[in-house]
Amino acid sequence: MTAVTHLFEFSAEPSLCSDSGFKKDVLQKLTDLFKETSFNHSSSKHDFGVKNGFMLVFCGKSGRNATVQAFSNGHVAVNIQIPAAESKNLGISEELDFDSLMKDIKAAICAKKFKRYPKIKRGDRFDRYYPTTGNLWVEYDFDRVVFEKDSSFQNIKIMHSEQFGNMLILDEDINLGESDLAYTLAITGNGREDYKGKDILILGGGDGGILHELLQKSPNFITMVEIDQVVVDAAKEHLRGICHDSLDKLEGPNYKVLIEDCIPVLETYAKEGRQFDYVINDLTAIPITVEPRGSQWDFMRYILDLSMKVLKPSGKYFTQGNGVLMKPALAMYEEQLQKLWCKVEFRKETVSVPSYMEMWVFYEIWKVT
Amino acid sequence: MTAVTHLFEFSAEPSLCSDSGFKKDVLQKLTDLFKETSFNHSSSKHDFGVKNGFMLVFCGKSGRNATVQAFSNGHVAVNIQIPAAESKNLGISEELDFDSLMKDIKAAICAKKFKRYPKIKRGDRFDRYYPTTGNLWVEYDFDRVVFEKDSSFQNIKIMHSEQFGNMLILDEDINLGESDLAYTLAITGNGREDYKGKDILILGGGDGGILHELLQKSPNFITMVEIDQVVVDAAKEHLRGICHDSLDKLEGPNYKVLIEDCIPVLETYAKEGRQFDYVINDLTAIPITVEPRGSQWDFMRYILDLSMKVLKPSGKYFTQGNGVLMKPALAMYEEQLQKLWCKVEFRKETVSVPSYMEMWVFYEIWKVT
Repeated sequence: MTAVTHLFEFSAEPSLCSDSGFKKDVLQKLTDLFKETSFNHSSSKHDFGVKNGFMLVFCGKSGRNATVQAFSNGHVAVNIQIPAAESKNLGISEELDFDSLMKDIKAAICAKKFKRYPKIKRGDRFDRYYPTTGNLWVEYDFDRVVFEKDSSFQNIKIMHSEQFGNMLILDEDINLGESDLAYTLAITGNGREDYKGKDILILGGGDGGILHELLQKSPNFITMVEIDQVVVDAAKEHLRGICHDSLDKLEGPNYKVLIEDCIPVLETYAKEGRQFDYVINDLTAIPITVEPRGSQWDFMRYILDLSMKVLKPSGKYFTQGNGVLMKPALAMYEEQLQKLWCKVEFRKETVSVPSYMEMWVFYEIWKVT
Repeated sequence: MTAVTHLFEFSAEPSLCSDSGFKKDVLQKLTDLFKETSFNHSSSKHDFGVKNGFMLVFCGKSGRNATVQAFSNGHVAVNIQIPAAESKNLGISEELDFDSLMKDIKAAICAKKFKRYPKIKRGDRFDRYYPTTGNLWVEYDFDRVVFEKDSSFQNIKIMHSEQFGNMLILDEDINLGESDLAYTLAITGNGREDYKGKDILILGGGDGGILHELLQKSPNFITMVEIDQVVVDAAKEHLRGICHDSLDKLEGPNYKVLIEDCIPVLETYAKEGRQFDYVINDLTAIPITVEPRGSQWDFMRYILDLSMKVLKPSGKYFTQGNGVLMKPALAMYEEQLQKLWCKVEFRKETVSVPSYMEMWVFYEIWKVT
């Protein structure tokens, strides 16, 4: 780890920036305070005038530093950065008493309110922070990299989380954790379907979750088309809480896993007139096919068109959509559904997938005549 | 909002801090780069030596500023803070092209890797960032304060989240969202119990979720003891996705809501020999009783002891535990269970409560003879 960044916020009076006597007094008090707290190596002052406030910088010898920025509305943002060596070796929480430092700052600037943000651990061997699709900030309790490899298609990473188990991350995009049976249940219809004796086509699904789930339901035959052998191999070894033993053999009496790009496979099936009771699209959000076609929406619509072709008239198509906050993307997806060669209807449901840390939308689509 | 803080991370060579030629070159390049990017109001340099690296500070006239800290291992942390007025009025994302700035920094310091963290919106009218019990950082999509009031017992806040609905926050502690039926189901045994014709005591539960859920199960009688009238009133109005109509009247043919401290009520019931089939403890984690007793664990054990006294021999006690990452607290709780006046056994299960953004442990406890 390189540094731990601590962020704090205070609400003081706007006069902090406009009343020169008050300001001078505060500057002196803060300077004394930080120098006493071993930020006494060097300091600097940056003044932006009454309209834009000011900023103080205090540095300690070890590289620890604090910036105190006062805004014209009286808000004060304090950022304290502690080098990791210091955080670890000196047991920083004991050595730098944040609680009393913040109390002192609060008094010095006559602040009414004070907020401490959770600390940010920066520059570690691996990232703990991922944006959700809604671009909200969430931190994972990752403690180790279980697997990492670049395949011909993508970067494949499996991280261990105490609470979510091993988690598959493809090209830095959170895919699925061992805690996430809710995802597999949602993308197979949450118990509303009877898969017994049915023919099923899974597009993608390299983690093996859907395959495992549906193999318990006595289907007639499951065909799964996953492009990336490396994902399948990694899942078989490190995501057994998702795939269980379903990927131990790529072929069984009632299933077959094809390691292929699903586009040509779908094209062949469509041409041959082969049809399925269910098509389950578990491809990643970002196309990695070897045959890209126009924009992402063109690709998505092409897959949908082909899927509808290989779906029996009474068949159903399941897929995951997007985070529920991604309204424009969800609307765009639903717009594509109106542009298919056949008329379709759909239902959607919003589900909490534990490791996603946001609500996720799933679609069920069927042809209407 | 006061400022938006953007955090970035680069991996360069350790020689950045130790090779004086390389360092001088980088300092010059960074200085030119930031000054060109309108951080040209003032700047300062803080050198911590070969062992501890250096830090540059660049400020723009509006109060925008950037700190670039290089650590001895070659990692470089860049923090850019943009005053909110600037972020909003000037459409900062267009005006300050982060992508090209980061590309330029990467080139200037000869970095191999680069990471951008989601931006942090600071000093707004309300907080979006809450620590989980495991002290991980999560951001909520709050867009408005629905309700806020200080009662005699606590600060009661209801925030609106697009994805989780209205959310109850007591003393800055996330309590429950309208998305969180999973919580109510877990604390009532996830469908394993038959509540028909049973006598049930709910401790706390002011949001009305448990009351509503169990009223659907034809119980004989539900007694709910909630200390805070303000919570009940707020829930009735703003958390209808949780309580539905269950709090519209505080008394019905088969239920009664007592606005009282549960401790004396439990003491009276124990003295009178009144017994229940189920006791469901839905009190907040931090005791707010008017009769505090020793430490939090003493309080918890006292409630448990009294609850076991008012529980029929065949009865069951349900409660929420803690975040699954809080192992010491969970162990401590289980240790208390061994110290009760009667012998008990328990089962626990881990459940994903959507708005908690962490896995949560629930307990089911029963007396053994």
